[in-house]
Amino acid sequence: MPGEDVSTRIEDSLLRSLARVTGSAAPPRLAAALTHAVFPGGQRIRPRLCLSVALACGDDQPLVSGAAAAAVEFLHCASLVHDDMPCFDNAMMRRGRPSVHAAHGEALALLAGDGLITLAFETVAMAAVADPVRSASLSLIIARSVGMPHGIVAGQGWESEAAPDLGLYQRAKTGALFAGAAMAGAAAAGCAAEPWGATGHLLGEAYQVADDIADVVGEARALGKPVGQDVFHGRPSAVQEFGIGGAARRLMALVEEAAERVPDCAGADALRAQIRAQASRFLPKEAAQHAA
Amino acid sequence: MPGEDVSTRIEDSLLRSLARVTGSAAPPRLAAALTHAVFPGGQRIRPRLCLSVALACGDDQPLVSGAAAAAVEFLHCASLVHDDMPCFDNAMMRRGRPSVHAAHGEALALLAGDGLITLAFETVAMAAVADPVRSASLSLIIARSVGMPHGIVAGQGWESEAAPDLGLYQRAKTGALFAGAAMAGAAAAGCAAEPWGATGHLLGEAYQVADDIADVVGEARALGKPVGQDVFHGRPSAVQEFGIGGAARRLMALVEEAAERVPDCAGADALRAQIRAQASRFLPKEAAQHAA
Repeated sequence: MPGEDVSTRIEDSLLRSLARVTGSAAPPRLAAALTHAVFPGGQRIRPRLCLSVALACGDDQPLVSGAAAAAVEFLHCASLVHDDMPCFDNAMMRRGRPSVHAAHGEALALLAGDGLITLAFETVAMAAVADPVRSASLSLIIARSVGMPHGIVAGQGWESEAAPDLGLYQRAKTGALFAGAAMAGAAAAGCAAEPWGATGHLLGEAYQVADDIADVVGEARALGKPVGQDVFHGRPSAVQEFGIGGAARRLMALVEEAAERVPDCAGADALRAQIRAQASRFLPKEAAQHAA
Repeated sequence: MPGEDVSTRIEDSLLRSLARVTGSAAPPRLAAALTHAVFPGGQRIRPRLCLSVALACGDDQPLVSGAAAAAVEFLHCASLVHDDMPCFDNAMMRRGRPSVHAAHGEALALLAGDGLITLAFETVAMAAVADPVRSASLSLIIARSVGMPHGIVAGQGWESEAAPDLGLYQRAKTGALFAGAAMAGAAAAGCAAEPWGATGHLLGEAYQVADDIADVVGEARALGKPVGQDVFHGRPSAVQEFGIGGAARRLMALVEEAAERVPDCAGADALRAQIRAQASRFLPKEAAQHAA
């Protein structure tokens, strides 16, 4: 995926949106919890996907695509904050430091998540000054990637079912926001969003497999979060299903299919190359040997 | 406020939006938690305000105003679900039956709130098929009435501060969504939203005073929730500040000012009359005697 310029655009867009709502009029502790949830970030992989797709589609409205990328990342951060809470994973560490509820308490973590979901929609709504049609379309895309029945909230909801539909569960929990990120990138550039869903979903599935592998072979320090959580929480995992080598091969196959499914657009070939190059970043070194 | 027809429109709009996301593809227990949070409802006072304002402004796009009213109520229901959770009020009863976390557990309550916030934005985004400009404007209005720094999330956030700004706290916690409801009603009908903020805020403040009074003189059975919670949680209350009689007089004055501040529009006089008539519904009978 593209480098420095995209990273700068993402961080700038996140900072600008967050600064608007955490100024002196805001309750200071909640403002600090929101900031803690967003900065410093992780890989920003979803907003990078969003902007990469927008660029491949011409990116004729950078204000709109920047808003889309920030919204996608705010939603991701919100889901991490709520997932880490005691009634879910009860995770005390995230990105190498205390999770939001560990640092700020449960009440502020709950509110920070709510505030970030809201900020995501506010951010795309503000892009309506540039283009109301694209703004409304973005709002619908991100709502569906988060909400019921197919978004990340639904994915989490399947964890409360005695006999979850594993296909729906995985598509919703990880795939939906990746699909949303890709579709939002296309919509922000004025292109049809729907054809980008498949590429996004496949990348989401690949990322989930990579995460399952890291949960087994990774080191907590490098990941910034505890390992061994899938077994601990009894969650389905590609490693349990296929072994490490099988999971690594599956990851490579998913990434290849994602690249092949990139819809025709001006920057399609460059984007396909970026996606293939990205696969090696997804795959932990220890697992790459098993895949050979 | 208007009667049967408005009630029917509100319930229909809520049902339609909720049915779309709780069908057979959704995780069933989370779907049940969302439905529990919305039906049966309370007074639906915020969506009634929203539709009353839309009607006063001509209501030339009933699909858009119906979406706005449903969105406002979904946001209100989400805030109740999250407020009732153990890390806030730990309230086991709401609307005369178990609260969502009491009935469905904390994890599903957390997700139900997230799902309802998302559904609110999805509902107004879908109205873009009728009018993308109004849809985007609604999205911005409701985002600001919920999020940071002035919405209900910020209001809740002030409760975690050692020395909260009481004016900002009350405006945000209750006033913001009433203001959002009134402004959304105007925007849904294609009118300027901003002038409606004052009327909405004043009605929200009046409702908060009524709620403070009910918390002291009301009966848990009639309210469907426990009384005495303000003192228990150490929250600021108009009754503590002014006594019951003073609080009741303040409520009447706020409602009168809200009516006077109704902006000029085709249905302004009828709306003012409705608002004044509504005041007596706000005020518990026991407190009306004190106000005389």
